[in-house]
Amino acid sequence: MAAWGERLAGVHGVLLDISGVLYDGGEDGGTPIPGSVEAVARLKRSQLKVRFCTNDSQKSRRELVGLLQRQGFDISEGEVTSPAPATSLILKERGLRPHLLIHDGVRSEFDQIDTSNPNCVVIADAGEGFSYQNMNKAFRVLMDLEKPVLISLGKGRYYKETSGLMLDVGAYMKALEYACGIEAEVVGKPSPEYFRLALKEMGVEAHEAIMIGDDIVGDVGGAQRCGMRALQVRTGKFRPSDEQHPEVKADGYVDNLAEAVDLLLQHAIK
Amino acid sequence: MAAWGERLAGVHGVLLDISGVLYDGGEDGGTPIPGSVEAVARLKRSQLKVRFCTNDSQKSRRELVGLLQRQGFDISEGEVTSPAPATSLILKERGLRPHLLIHDGVRSEFDQIDTSNPNCVVIADAGEGFSYQNMNKAFRVLMDLEKPVLISLGKGRYYKETSGLMLDVGAYMKALEYACGIEAEVVGKPSPEYFRLALKEMGVEAHEAIMIGDDIVGDVGGAQRCGMRALQVRTGKFRPSDEQHPEVKADGYVDNLAEAVDLLLQHAIK
Repeated sequence: MAAWGERLAGVHGVLLDISGVLYDGGEDGGTPIPGSVEAVARLKRSQLKVRFCTNDSQKSRRELVGLLQRQGFDISEGEVTSPAPATSLILKERGLRPHLLIHDGVRSEFDQIDTSNPNCVVIADAGEGFSYQNMNKAFRVLMDLEKPVLISLGKGRYYKETSGLMLDVGAYMKALEYACGIEAEVVGKPSPEYFRLALKEMGVEAHEAIMIGDDIVGDVGGAQRCGMRALQVRTGKFRPSDEQHPEVKADGYVDNLAEAVDLLLQHAIK
Repeated sequence: MAAWGERLAGVHGVLLDISGVLYDGGEDGGTPIPGSVEAVARLKRSQLKVRFCTNDSQKSRRELVGLLQRQGFDISEGEVTSPAPATSLILKERGLRPHLLIHDGVRSEFDQIDTSNPNCVVIADAGEGFSYQNMNKAFRVLMDLEKPVLISLGKGRYYKETSGLMLDVGAYMKALEYACGIEAEVVGKPSPEYFRLALKEMGVEAHEAIMIGDDIVGDVGGAQRCGMRALQVRTGKFRPSDEQHPEVKADGYVDNLAEAVDLLLQHAIK
């Protein structure tokens, strides 16, 4: 593999995944990953542009940012690209009235949306909301539609909480896709439209940007397909087998965000 | 389409799906589909061989047969091919110790199976057992295995209860397959091994047998791929669009089991 200097040359902007990179989520709000609070602060003091790009669909952007600020992170709502506000815009543009299978924590993002007489289903990481009853209800709404529309906030396979691995929205999306014989529209990583939205909001071209994430497929593979570079951190949902993934090879593997920032500050900015 | 006489010539054995053909399930035990009790009785008085071939994985064979007998059906345990006893055999043969994500009603079929220190996951139609907690638990067992083995009792997309359409085990199987990046082994229709087991138990060759079911893919398509003929009934989970299914065309569509038996008695036996 080429030297770090070569691999990081010309990087002007950094997209940071949040869960598994900044902190590990959990029922108590989770805990920062050692070194990440300081790493974000150092990045923001540098000449690099920084934006946060999450698939978190359990919390409103406001709630997520508040939680991270209390853990000491230098982050504000305007710096975060997250799927719920992006979905809310899409629903308005297309005149869609969703049946919402979502976590209560994110419901406020849909306050302005008409949910009467639904003509689509929106599924997010509903956590305990993924009950047998709620899954059947969403399924029946879809089956009653002539052309079922299912919008999924991300399609993650799983994520790590302090209590262990948890199934993510992608698993439940697949269940509904299979049962209805349809394909969901994904708002979130690794959808190219979503990465392009984050890049546009950061004001950096894809070839000048690098993604840092813990998900080899959703973060690393998705960003690379958009023409960005991508590093995988060995925190969060990282598993050693990711470094031999059959389809995706990161531009580099680092122990954690702190190491990624060390390398960026050393090599990206000359 | 050819005349019924041609389509049904040479049929010696009939495989009957149960749910949606004999009765519609429900919390109260469900209700017989009008005409089906009498239709089964007429079939059994004929020269045709009859066997029941179900994917029901919520109830033990004993419980299912008891329920049907109370509704007036002429049926005994020895006449039923069902996935739980078939799976139990496979587990014993391969020395597998399952983590069971199944309905309490079918647990007795696994009484003789060692479930300590699990080295596979068996998933059946767990009904309310498909909770967020139980899905995460099964997922974690799979992720802890070096080579995850997932056995699914059927892979139905959905079925109809008196209260409405319900997601079937196949949807939850897809969720776990996607999250773990694996493919499940299916015990039940439309698996060819399962149809061949039912045919062997009935003692009839595939080309002399006909399947009668309400599932265009699982019953009709699966049976046809095994060299059998197949009729779809317009009861149970049948939907009018099934008659224009892009991949599967039944050898005939009938309003219900009673009509199927009328035709069989008129044309199959000369």
